[in-house]
Amino acid sequence: MEFENIEKCLEKYIPSEELAEVQRILYGKQCKKLEFSENAKERNENLGFELAGYEMPGTTSKPRRIRIGLIQNKIVLPTNAPVKDQVDAFHKRIGDIADVASHCGVNILCFQEAWTMPFAFCTREKVPWTDFAESAEDGPTTKYCQEMAKRYNMVIISPILERDGAHGGTLWNTAVVISNTGVVLGKTRKNHIPRVGDFNESTYYMEGNTGHRVFQTVYGKIAINICYGRHHPLNWMMYGVNGAEIVFNPSATVGALSEPMWPIEARCAAIANHYYSCAINRVGTETFPNEFTSGDGKPAHKDFGHFYGSSYVAAPDGTRTPGLSRTQDGLLVTSVDLNLCQEISDKWMFRATARHEMYAESLKESTQLEFKQDIIKEK
Amino acid sequence: MEFENIEKCLEKYIPSEELAEVQRILYGKQCKKLEFSENAKERNENLGFELAGYEMPGTTSKPRRIRIGLIQNKIVLPTNAPVKDQVDAFHKRIGDIADVASHCGVNILCFQEAWTMPFAFCTREKVPWTDFAESAEDGPTTKYCQEMAKRYNMVIISPILERDGAHGGTLWNTAVVISNTGVVLGKTRKNHIPRVGDFNESTYYMEGNTGHRVFQTVYGKIAINICYGRHHPLNWMMYGVNGAEIVFNPSATVGALSEPMWPIEARCAAIANHYYSCAINRVGTETFPNEFTSGDGKPAHKDFGHFYGSSYVAAPDGTRTPGLSRTQDGLLVTSVDLNLCQEISDKWMFRATARHEMYAESLKESTQLEFKQDIIKEK
Repeated sequence: MEFENIEKCLEKYIPSEELAEVQRILYGKQCKKLEFSENAKERNENLGFELAGYEMPGTTSKPRRIRIGLIQNKIVLPTNAPVKDQVDAFHKRIGDIADVASHCGVNILCFQEAWTMPFAFCTREKVPWTDFAESAEDGPTTKYCQEMAKRYNMVIISPILERDGAHGGTLWNTAVVISNTGVVLGKTRKNHIPRVGDFNESTYYMEGNTGHRVFQTVYGKIAINICYGRHHPLNWMMYGVNGAEIVFNPSATVGALSEPMWPIEARCAAIANHYYSCAINRVGTETFPNEFTSGDGKPAHKDFGHFYGSSYVAAPDGTRTPGLSRTQDGLLVTSVDLNLCQEISDKWMFRATARHEMYAESLKESTQLEFKQDIIKEK
Repeated sequence: MEFENIEKCLEKYIPSEELAEVQRILYGKQCKKLEFSENAKERNENLGFELAGYEMPGTTSKPRRIRIGLIQNKIVLPTNAPVKDQVDAFHKRIGDIADVASHCGVNILCFQEAWTMPFAFCTREKVPWTDFAESAEDGPTTKYCQEMAKRYNMVIISPILERDGAHGGTLWNTAVVISNTGVVLGKTRKNHIPRVGDFNESTYYMEGNTGHRVFQTVYGKIAINICYGRHHPLNWMMYGVNGAEIVFNPSATVGALSEPMWPIEARCAAIANHYYSCAINRVGTETFPNEFTSGDGKPAHKDFGHFYGSSYVAAPDGTRTPGLSRTQDGLLVTSVDLNLCQEISDKWMFRATARHEMYAESLKESTQLEFKQDIIKEK
């Protein structure tokens, strides 16, 4: 039995006066719960997923409020179902949840990493998993998202396995950004590729070549740092340097590996870079047709552990929302004030005091083959 | 009444099965409590401070264990006592706690930021606070620490307000590193200076000019990232690039300002850089002779809030110790396995996958006056 949710556990057992201090220290300022329409609640109940909504505290003046939606989900069909059936089932399930998101006033909606497929890269098999790859520009998933975006007047971030027809049909781990008008704004690729535990994802795709672009939407400036890139502070930083107000981190990661790091990294990035960060993880256990080994001395097996969900939003002042469930599909709706980014930057001045010139210099030196570390020894 | 401690509150209220999950998610792997000698416990009781000790999980093979000591403390005499009396009282109090540390097997001991003085920089008065400044090389505090280091065969990190006689008597916020032999290994200065809330510390001292040096000691390679530098991921990173296995962060920060960020930043640095980080904060409230204003529209006042202690150690695998008290003087003794740094680096490979060449380039470009952000707009 997987543990359901840390925040609910704290609320259940800790008396209210002490709970307020625990929550302040662990989560920052208090987030108000959002109320949704009866219509949204009814659809949510019929579909059977967790619907959570929070209003994060904002600026004292000139608020610029928008609503972010994050979706975390299990796979819908078994991994041995025909590829097209699996993709169609994902489209249907996420389309239904996106519809609820639209009834909750969501302006920018982001799905989990490689959302149209099981996270099969642990198998090291190419077939059938590479068949899930699509064109970022005009694949069926992009077209499906364009329709949704236009229908709901919503910006949609669709992280997929991309097949790059113009460059030898190579694969990439890519997020497609679709404007609220339905136009494909562009794509951005995963910059850092893991070789950890079950995943050497470079079996499928290499380090991204799209840099740290930021997408200007009518709802704010957004960027996408995919999965393993959350471990790299410089990656987070460059999205901020390019002006991002929200950075999404669609991920796929399991409990035994990374769970104590999960609440730390995306939140630290929000603090360090004066922007909002959104951590999204899938949920559940995915079982594959053929067994595989994990380089850990253990017998071959068909799954690699529990994706723990726990998706959350963190603000530039260090405040974060509670996490979604560790076990269920969920939609997290968060109202944020984008003007808080500049207000916190004016207050804390991490950017102004960052001394980037010095680091550009010392970082460059440190990459030289003949680099010598600055180590002081006793004479 | 200040809230005492978050970890003790969780232990008090949450049933043990669920507590194990809460602690795993919030703190990582379980740390064993260290047992100390009767002698150490008796001295501790007589001196009236919190003594806490943990053994962090290490490598499965070839451990290289050492013990880190962190001291957090209140001021000893009122801030209007003669400067020399205040300094002497700090020496006595910290000397007594260091003696207990030696009985707990501590190998490397670090004191809090500007440990020989109240944190008076909020007052913006120069006198008498600048009288607390000393030579890093041969001031009375350095001499006092040299004696302790030799007596206890302990590396001592002594963060002080430095007067730099060789360069116009300028002031710096500096940590002096003293070898277990009693020799002054060198000094390292605070790289990032806050202009936040009550503190524009550039009223007293400027950004450090000692780079990111690392000190090779018999107990491991160490570096010191002083206070506000913990908000700067590049600062943490460069200590790692220079080979640090432990980075100390002696700090002085109050609850209303920074407390929800405190558990995040130093711990994220330990994860991102494959080293141990040690966060040290002072405790208590310091009241000054003359009133001052805080640029927040509120009336003049004589103190600027509660230093919340909560010192802790974080490991490269993301595990952290519980924090010391939010209200009392304390000594935190932590047994760590320095070979875990390389083992976790081999496992997670954040350094190997960091793409520093790319960032050295893009960071340099971004500092040019004519830099244009990479922003994609709808046509």
